[in-house]
Amino acid sequence: MDNTKKQTALSTLGEFGLIDRLTQQIRLQHESTVKGVGDDAAVLNFDKNHVVVTTDMLTEGIHFNLMYVPLKHLGYKAVVVNLSDVFAMNAQPRQITVSIAVSSKFSVEAIDELYEGIHLACEQYGVDLIGGDTTSSMTGLTISVTAIGEAPKEDLVYRSGAQPNDLICVSGDLGGAYMGLQLLERENAVFKVNPKEQPKLEGYDYILERQLKPEARGDIMQALKQLNVKPTSMIDISDGLSSELMHICKNSKVGCAVYEEKIPMDFQTKQFAEELSINPLVAALNGGEDYELLFTIPLSDHDKIKNDPDITVIGHITAEADGSQLITAAGSAIPLQAQGWNPIAKESE
Amino acid sequence: MDNTKKQTALSTLGEFGLIDRLTQQIRLQHESTVKGVGDDAAVLNFDKNHVVVTTDMLTEGIHFNLMYVPLKHLGYKAVVVNLSDVFAMNAQPRQITVSIAVSSKFSVEAIDELYEGIHLACEQYGVDLIGGDTTSSMTGLTISVTAIGEAPKEDLVYRSGAQPNDLICVSGDLGGAYMGLQLLERENAVFKVNPKEQPKLEGYDYILERQLKPEARGDIMQALKQLNVKPTSMIDISDGLSSELMHICKNSKVGCAVYEEKIPMDFQTKQFAEELSINPLVAALNGGEDYELLFTIPLSDHDKIKNDPDITVIGHITAEADGSQLITAAGSAIPLQAQGWNPIAKESE
Repeated sequence: MDNTKKQTALSTLGEFGLIDRLTQQIRLQHESTVKGVGDDAAVLNFDKNHVVVTTDMLTEGIHFNLMYVPLKHLGYKAVVVNLSDVFAMNAQPRQITVSIAVSSKFSVEAIDELYEGIHLACEQYGVDLIGGDTTSSMTGLTISVTAIGEAPKEDLVYRSGAQPNDLICVSGDLGGAYMGLQLLERENAVFKVNPKEQPKLEGYDYILERQLKPEARGDIMQALKQLNVKPTSMIDISDGLSSELMHICKNSKVGCAVYEEKIPMDFQTKQFAEELSINPLVAALNGGEDYELLFTIPLSDHDKIKNDPDITVIGHITAEADGSQLITAAGSAIPLQAQGWNPIAKESE
Repeated sequence: MDNTKKQTALSTLGEFGLIDRLTQQIRLQHESTVKGVGDDAAVLNFDKNHVVVTTDMLTEGIHFNLMYVPLKHLGYKAVVVNLSDVFAMNAQPRQITVSIAVSSKFSVEAIDELYEGIHLACEQYGVDLIGGDTTSSMTGLTISVTAIGEAPKEDLVYRSGAQPNDLICVSGDLGGAYMGLQLLERENAVFKVNPKEQPKLEGYDYILERQLKPEARGDIMQALKQLNVKPTSMIDISDGLSSELMHICKNSKVGCAVYEEKIPMDFQTKQFAEELSINPLVAALNGGEDYELLFTIPLSDHDKIKNDPDITVIGHITAEADGSQLITAAGSAIPLQAQGWNPIAKESE
């Protein structure tokens, strides 16, 4: 937070004043939003479409560190991670609700910043902010977002539809968000020791953006529609490739073989991993927060997707008995392990 | 929390282990729930009905004090306060999502207790728990619940439909939840000074239940349907009668006249108010958390509701220019003021 800016105590507004301030700029965009903020509940109309609902909660000190995460980015990301789940159902996000609990250390201007990011994400992805709750907490900031989307029943894609011989695909590249977090953590540690030292972030803009301002891959969902490809299963990569692959395998009752050398990684991800003497593969497999889409398609659809630069085939689905295997560059098979980010276990480590 | 019970650290389960534990007893009840917990998002099908969505967040130390609120009751109440908002739209609640953030001071058994209350409310009100998020916090417990309901478009009741001469009605009685809170606070203060002193709660079971285990008035919504009465406006009483009346007046662009002597209050509410030398009217007008329904009906429907012991006519809607007035027993008119519970302003007081 920039401490030179004007800081107004939240208590000067009160709950209704704050709600008015935060909701005055809302312009509803969707036909499906019949009534947004301002009654006991929002009212939506999806006609014959199915409705999808997902929710995520972010807490200060666990999911984000306000020492280096700007509030605007945090607001944006809190929305995006939920939209990512809606896209992973092959559905179109339409509405969100946002609830926040804030302690008195936050000013009105700080909350404005947070909502700037929230409104920006709404605009960017064409979703309506239809409600929420605004309250106080004893310490820190908690944000809970619920996203609602719609799709014709026949378009929905679950985690459970993968079949042996299906191709396993990912969008974009992996591991960047995790390496971005490592960079921010390193510079924050340096800052704590010597507050006058300038953070060394040059040349790492891509991985920083992957961590601080991720995007949800609605574009991939649209591209697949245009290519006339309906995935047999799909999930978004929030906890790391390994964990998500195992969700698909478990839910579809299949195994998988994924090739180390096929896993797409950006140059900066590899470079910074090298700087820290980390194997970048670990960042891709277990780092999480990439918010790319992981999906399976029938082998017969390979020709349709093979020229899309944003989609990479990383392996194929096998029989359940074959297990979930990572095939290393040297050709040996290693069982995948879900060591994704685990906020509950982490706490006591 | 009963410290003699077995306490298992949450970290022994991890996030997925905890989710499995908390979701294994879920039995989906509704046709409209196509897919519950277990994918990127839940999938719902409301066919042609409109969908209503509402959300509330409760934080430890602000909304509840675990010194005297049992976790099972807290879980129950966290659900009920959201269902109350759905009923206030004249819609039927169908699904909820529940997100919690917990610090390491909570054991697996404590979270089990919380979810016992959540599951009980789901069973009691026939709603499906379809998703959520389970994560950790630096301090305390935060619960965020989103409730989803459905109704034919023509059944929905907003805050904005009240007309001059409509009758203003409330269900049940008011002020009890607030007086119950005062009682719990008093006994907690005594306990802090002398932990051996037994709390004096005898004779106040009704107001304690109003505070600790409120119910949402789906029965009133059903009763009105059977009486063939569709309210012109409706809201649930979460912040106190005064504040809710003013919401209806503001949204409907009308005024109101409410009669002090008509406001229904229970004997225990009055008795304990007297013990504390509080005017019980203040508890009813500004106390909040009663979760009764406040609604307006056309004058011509008076005969239909007049014999329902659970519905009281407390006044009537007037022209906007007449303002919102409380008519005292002595016959004088006092402008209503919304001094309902305000978690944001409260913090700095």
